[in-house]
Amino acid sequence: MSDLGTRIEAGDPRAAARAMRNVDDRMPGYLELLKEIFPRTGRAFVVGVTGNPGAGKSTLTDRLIERYRAGGRSVGVICVDPSSPYTGGAILGDRIRMTRHATDPGVFIRSVATRGHLGGLSRSARDMVRVLDAYGCDVVIVETVGVGQDELEITRTAHSTLVVMAPGMGDEVQAIKAGILETADVFAVNKADRDGADSAMRDLELMIALGTETMVAVGKTKGHVMHGAVKVDILPSCPETTEARWTPPIVKCVSTRGEGIADILEALDRHKAWIDGTEAGRARRRLRLAEELRESLRETLIEAATGALGREIERAVSDVEAKSIDPYTATEQLLAAFRAR
Amino acid sequence: MSDLGTRIEAGDPRAAARAMRNVDDRMPGYLELLKEIFPRTGRAFVVGVTGNPGAGKSTLTDRLIERYRAGGRSVGVICVDPSSPYTGGAILGDRIRMTRHATDPGVFIRSVATRGHLGGLSRSARDMVRVLDAYGCDVVIVETVGVGQDELEITRTAHSTLVVMAPGMGDEVQAIKAGILETADVFAVNKADRDGADSAMRDLELMIALGTETMVAVGKTKGHVMHGAVKVDILPSCPETTEARWTPPIVKCVSTRGEGIADILEALDRHKAWIDGTEAGRARRRLRLAEELRESLRETLIEAATGALGREIERAVSDVEAKSIDPYTATEQLLAAFRAR
Repeated sequence: MSDLGTRIEAGDPRAAARAMRNVDDRMPGYLELLKEIFPRTGRAFVVGVTGNPGAGKSTLTDRLIERYRAGGRSVGVICVDPSSPYTGGAILGDRIRMTRHATDPGVFIRSVATRGHLGGLSRSARDMVRVLDAYGCDVVIVETVGVGQDELEITRTAHSTLVVMAPGMGDEVQAIKAGILETADVFAVNKADRDGADSAMRDLELMIALGTETMVAVGKTKGHVMHGAVKVDILPSCPETTEARWTPPIVKCVSTRGEGIADILEALDRHKAWIDGTEAGRARRRLRLAEELRESLRETLIEAATGALGREIERAVSDVEAKSIDPYTATEQLLAAFRAR
Repeated sequence: MSDLGTRIEAGDPRAAARAMRNVDDRMPGYLELLKEIFPRTGRAFVVGVTGNPGAGKSTLTDRLIERYRAGGRSVGVICVDPSSPYTGGAILGDRIRMTRHATDPGVFIRSVATRGHLGGLSRSARDMVRVLDAYGCDVVIVETVGVGQDELEITRTAHSTLVVMAPGMGDEVQAIKAGILETADVFAVNKADRDGADSAMRDLELMIALGTETMVAVGKTKGHVMHGAVKVDILPSCPETTEARWTPPIVKCVSTRGEGIADILEALDRHKAWIDGTEAGRARRRLRLAEELRESLRETLIEAATGALGREIERAVSDVEAKSIDPYTATEQLLAAFRAR
């Protein structure tokens, strides 16, 4: 066991901070460290928090930290912003309110800047979660800035994902993006004291009942949602959670006043129990593990191929440029050359 | 040469339509077809059109088609929506106004639905551009729905990318996302008859002059932009385009009235001349080709590895699940097993 690994597992916050930096920047030795600490991981409960900008995710996360701490649990937070190095900075500023936890040794907050590599951020986030897990955090919260495709990808590193929405955010229709119904384990309708909270609840219920991705105009619809081109104004009751199927509960909250936070925690706990206690929950866990391995194999393969092929890739580019070969055949030849090494 | 390939090159629109479907769905034989037609590609000028929803991209695209047609050039359009199968449908509806080109044999419009695979859409888009290129389109427009990371990726398949913005789109600050300055070759400030158009121009000019990603509040700032945490209120003049450096021009337009469209075309033509006529332009073209090869090698590698390893990946997942191995070592072992085949 390396010195850094030993110190992380002993709960040394400076060691954890250094390890997270090393992992995020893929410094030499980061892989050995991750291998070393892996046996000590798997204890933390990992919660993903995602939703449109302005939905109040940071305030809600702040409240979740508060509650978990009140229950005696240590909390790690990883803030991920894949969209912009600039807003990354802005979020950090916005996050100043979280500094009230700064002197609490039971809270550990880190931001991950954009890497600009597809898939790279979710890998970094996953590895950083493992550091916080080995370090001894009981709960790790992974918070993203928006609900883009990359961000949904990142929340798949979590055991339970909380999707935060808010009614009355301007005139714009808030699109529920593809994949969100599959991603969301709990919906929080934040700022529930505002107009439109009830119709937001109804829209979500309907979307869940229909079991389909659709567009929800939070706080804008009048008892109906558009389902494809069809206006649906009946209101079926929400399907029940069963052994085989988890139905995301919808929880109202007002984070600024701390209302509804206990209900969110309770919903997350129920989801955790479902994952741990049912065959379907375990299957989902396994699926995510398979996704991770596939992702990491993909990255490792291209790194190995780039290393092994060296200037052959350069030559292929020149050949395609000169149109002496097509890019599809060139790719096949590069693959064959790599496999022949 | 296959029958389909021959018919595409002879300009048979039904053959082109079928080929695009085959390529998008990766039907058997799609790769052979792409190899076959590749030597006939490289003649079309490929224009990417991107920008926030609501900026008026479809109307602008419609006007671009009109102008190009008036100049006697045939136009292909590929509409890509990576965000949602639902909005994919919505866009198609929204696109009905384009049907005025439906009876024009010189215009060919196709939509690409989401595939849910990272990287998959830009590959599809690139291949479909090649079909339209071989089919004989003089210009191919690739239009995306938003400006997410995936969508910027897609516009990198274009020779010239037009980023469309509009002032006064509600109260929200419009973030210029990371990568957009690198992506944009021409900026169009659409709806230029609205309040805030001038300050949008100023913001963009400043952003370009600073040569940095920043946040632009279109139509909201009063002669300054926030640069990081620093409020910048000086107004440097825009850098000039040189042999070595392309500076994206900013063009005002009102697409609904057809104003400024000629200026956009002129700016795009200048950019094309820069790409074709300068060392830096050719270097950029080469860089994008290298990116394509790397991307396609990455996909081909994981497909080959998944095929060759078969149930070994399944077993690795079980082992990691049982914690008898860590995922990092498991990945290395899978890589070694693949290379040993």
